[in-house]
Amino acid sequence: MKDDSAEAAGAYGAAGVDLDAARRVKERLAALVEGTFGPEVVGGFGGFGGGFAVGGLSEPDPVLLATTDGVGTKVLVAQRANRHDTVGQDLVHHCVNDLLASLARPLFFLDYVATGELQEGIAISLVGGVARACRANGLALLGGETAEMPDLYEPGTYDLAGFAIGVAPRSRLDRKDGVAEGDSVIGLPSSGLHTNGYSLARHIVFEKEGQTIDGETPWGETWADALLAVHRSYLPEVGPLLDDPALHGVAHVTGGGFEGNLPRVLPRTLGARLDRGAWEPPPIFAWLARTGGVEEEEMLRVFNMGVGMCLVVEVGEGERIAGAAGGFLMGTIVRGGGVQWA
Amino acid sequence: MKDDSAEAAGAYGAAGVDLDAARRVKERLAALVEGTFGPEVVGGFGGFGGGFAVGGLSEPDPVLLATTDGVGTKVLVAQRANRHDTVGQDLVHHCVNDLLASLARPLFFLDYVATGELQEGIAISLVGGVARACRANGLALLGGETAEMPDLYEPGTYDLAGFAIGVAPRSRLDRKDGVAEGDSVIGLPSSGLHTNGYSLARHIVFEKEGQTIDGETPWGETWADALLAVHRSYLPEVGPLLDDPALHGVAHVTGGGFEGNLPRVLPRTLGARLDRGAWEPPPIFAWLARTGGVEEEEMLRVFNMGVGMCLVVEVGEGERIAGAAGGFLMGTIVRGGGVQWA
Repeated sequence: MKDDSAEAAGAYGAAGVDLDAARRVKERLAALVEGTFGPEVVGGFGGFGGGFAVGGLSEPDPVLLATTDGVGTKVLVAQRANRHDTVGQDLVHHCVNDLLASLARPLFFLDYVATGELQEGIAISLVGGVARACRANGLALLGGETAEMPDLYEPGTYDLAGFAIGVAPRSRLDRKDGVAEGDSVIGLPSSGLHTNGYSLARHIVFEKEGQTIDGETPWGETWADALLAVHRSYLPEVGPLLDDPALHGVAHVTGGGFEGNLPRVLPRTLGARLDRGAWEPPPIFAWLARTGGVEEEEMLRVFNMGVGMCLVVEVGEGERIAGAAGGFLMGTIVRGGGVQWA
Repeated sequence: MKDDSAEAAGAYGAAGVDLDAARRVKERLAALVEGTFGPEVVGGFGGFGGGFAVGGLSEPDPVLLATTDGVGTKVLVAQRANRHDTVGQDLVHHCVNDLLASLARPLFFLDYVATGELQEGIAISLVGGVARACRANGLALLGGETAEMPDLYEPGTYDLAGFAIGVAPRSRLDRKDGVAEGDSVIGLPSSGLHTNGYSLARHIVFEKEGQTIDGETPWGETWADALLAVHRSYLPEVGPLLDDPALHGVAHVTGGGFEGNLPRVLPRTLGARLDRGAWEPPPIFAWLARTGGVEEEEMLRVFNMGVGMCLVVEVGEGERIAGAAGGFLMGTIVRGGGVQWA
């Protein structure tokens, strides 16, 4: 491709797409992306697809686990705050946690960025955030696509999707069958809303209450800081526990809350009895409930309420694993499906 | 999660998100998705991530190849035509062709659908198209995400991204080093615009010329049929050639055209001399050039011009492979980078 921006501003430029800007972003990101490559990565940056050698996997009878997700309308908060370096981290951490919920160790990642008009600085912040989070969590950023789509996205807006692949030994995947009545449920604290409930939160904060992104919350930070707090990656705490036979299940508390996510890692005949008094949600949740007039039942369905991940562990091992993972006991596995609150 | 739509129409419903509709779509898609599962797939539909066993791979020293892409603003044409069952196929075929360009056999796929308001019928058409194309191309549809994001997407609009993983024996990936001066370039016919150049094409067809989606093209089909022709998958023709030692490289002609894609599979010191007279582009390309006043040079940069894939093959093997793949000889590998037109 020739380096001639004037030419690119021809008929295609008139239709709103700048192929040269896309190429420049790609060039500026090459070093960041290649910084995530470990010894398993085959080939360099810029081909049609990145390669990852299977031979080096240490897991016996390895099974690849795959997941995809976005960060929801948290991107609109980032755009409102003009702060674009955190949502890429949200995206990676969300996918890493989904892999942990599959009892998998993360291996590699790909990102998709779609925007109305490619602004080089924003694209580099976004993908830079993805690359940094990949590096911090040990994932190779094997590829990505940055699509410029005028008419679908307003100027200055973008969406972001991520895809992650992890690996687990096949024997570990059967661990779920070990979940039994009496098992303990451990909660791990979230860092904020993570990436769920942003349509409702934005509605309450900005539309109903008329707050500004730089305004201060009642608990003394800006709304930008409160709403853009990075989705926590539980890899440092939960990764080392994946081979612990007492760990029976991992649930990532995202859209649908406890009720929508915890039963997904339980046999159909079992449910969870959770103690809502076991922890105190951070102030943002109480504020959203009170100010938005949202019933507790719906709060628990839409938001993580301060608990971003639940571990289901063998009876008698709850204290030990809660200590190791920095969490707290919040319930018990009982007969019957779903989630009951005590 | 309870089956109570009235409850879902609470505060979160007021913010524009319907969690129950998302669940119903998921349930209705389960059978279609599970229909793509082969014996390597571990676990069922509905967990946090699907599993794919590595042990069954027949390739020696297997390397996983990964790719992600969208279908560009072709989604806006689908929305204009209210025809939603083809863009999912475009998405899968685009990714399959990218894997072929990595000399990889496709294994599995994940999709991301983002929309302003989840319309069950549309979501099922979209993901149904993805599932059918996965099945036809032998990919397991391991997972997906359907995100409802009011305020980012207009009602009735959506975007679509896909992620595909394939596999190749490591020895095959070194084949690229076999590309040499004198190698032949074979072109494989495209089925239309595939998924590139839609911002420019929509601009010319709908804005400049004021055509309607149901109106007739000068060559006698509707604009909907012409612009929604499904991106061709080259797997049936190129898949069987991947182990042929005469096949040195595969380029998927997408955004950037021949110039942006063919050199990606060549050593830096080599380029391609292509014969523009070797084939006759389908009438839509001549019409877009003439009506839109687009120079030939830019047409070749933005559109595939009737050639969706190029194969680089050993000198003397061109006729044989062109015959096997249903293509035609269109050029030669020469010294110097880039693409020259003869």
